[in-house]
Amino acid sequence: MAFTDEELMMRALEIALEGMLAGRGGPFGSVIAKDGVIIGEGSNEVTSANDPTAHAEIVAIRNACRALGSFRLEGCRIYTSCEPCPMCLGAIYWARPEKFFYAGTREDAAAAGFDDEDIYEELALPVPSRRLPAEPMLRDRALDLFREWIEMPDKITY
Amino acid sequence: MAFTDEELMMRALEIALEGMLAGRGGPFGSVIAKDGVIIGEGSNEVTSANDPTAHAEIVAIRNACRALGSFRLEGCRIYTSCEPCPMCLGAIYWARPEKFFYAGTREDAAAAGFDDEDIYEELALPVPSRRLPAEPMLRDRALDLFREWIEMPDKITY
Repeated sequence: MAFTDEELMMRALEIALEGMLAGRGGPFGSVIAKDGVIIGEGSNEVTSANDPTAHAEIVAIRNACRALGSFRLEGCRIYTSCEPCPMCLGAIYWARPEKFFYAGTREDAAAAGFDDEDIYEELALPVPSRRLPAEPMLRDRALDLFREWIEMPDKITY
Repeated sequence: MAFTDEELMMRALEIALEGMLAGRGGPFGSVIAKDGVIIGEGSNEVTSANDPTAHAEIVAIRNACRALGSFRLEGCRIYTSCEPCPMCLGAIYWARPEKFFYAGTREDAAAAGFDDEDIYEELALPVPSRRLPAEPMLRDRALDLFREWIEMPDKITY
C-alpha cells in the first residue's frame, strides 16, 4: 500500500527524533519514496560516524541509490524534516528526484544552532569575498584533464 | 617529508586522471593534507558506486575524517582538481578545513558537460523560482523537534 506525502513526512520526522535520541547526530531525518513506497531512509549521523557529510538527506540518497542500483533517483520524492543545507540541496540536484518536501526551514535550523543559513550566504559570495580562503592554481592542468574527458569514448555521464 | 601545495594539487590531478581512466567516474580528484602530509584522498566514483554524492571531495573528506577519527578537519587543507560544486563546497564548510585550493573552475566543468554552474544558479534562487519543485509541509512538527534538540542535555554539536 502506498503512503501519502504527509505519512512519508511524518516518518522522516520520526526518524529524526529517533536518531537524535539515540545520539546518532542532529535532529534531522529523511525518507525517499517511489510511488509512495519507501526505498531509502536516513538520519543525521555526523557526530557518531565522524562524517561531516552524513546529513540525513545524504544518508538517505546513498541508501536509496544502493537499493535501486542507480545513481539517479528518477521519479522519486524526497521527504526531509528540514529544508536541505547547500550540501544536501546540491546532492538532491545531482540525484535528480522529481520533487522534495521539507518541514522546518533554514531559519528554523539556524535558530537551533545549525550553520545552514550561514553557508547559503557564503556560497552566494564570489570566491575572494568568502571567509574560507580558496586559492586557484594549476588551472591549465585541469583543462588538459577535461579535454581528455571530452575526447574519451564510451564514458558514462551523470 | 611534507609536500608543497603544488605537489599536493598535482597529486589531486593525478588521482582525477587515474579515476577517469579506470572508469570510476568523472575526471575529478581531491587530496586532504595536514602540515603537508596526506591524510585522505578521493576520486569521483558516482557512476561506479551508483552514488550521486560520491564526488572526489566528499570521498576525500570521508576518508580523511575516518583517518582522524573526527568530524572536523581543523588545520587541514583540501586540494581539488576543480572548483567544488555546491554540494562539495557545502561539505567543505561543514568539515571546517583552514583553506582549499582548486585547479579548474566551475565554468571549465560546465564546458566539459557537468552541472556545477547550473546548480549554483538554482541554489541562489528563492525556493518557488527553482526548476526542482519543493513543497513545505508540517513545519510545526519540525519546530517541536528543534525545541527538543535545544533542551536536550549532553548533546554533541557540530
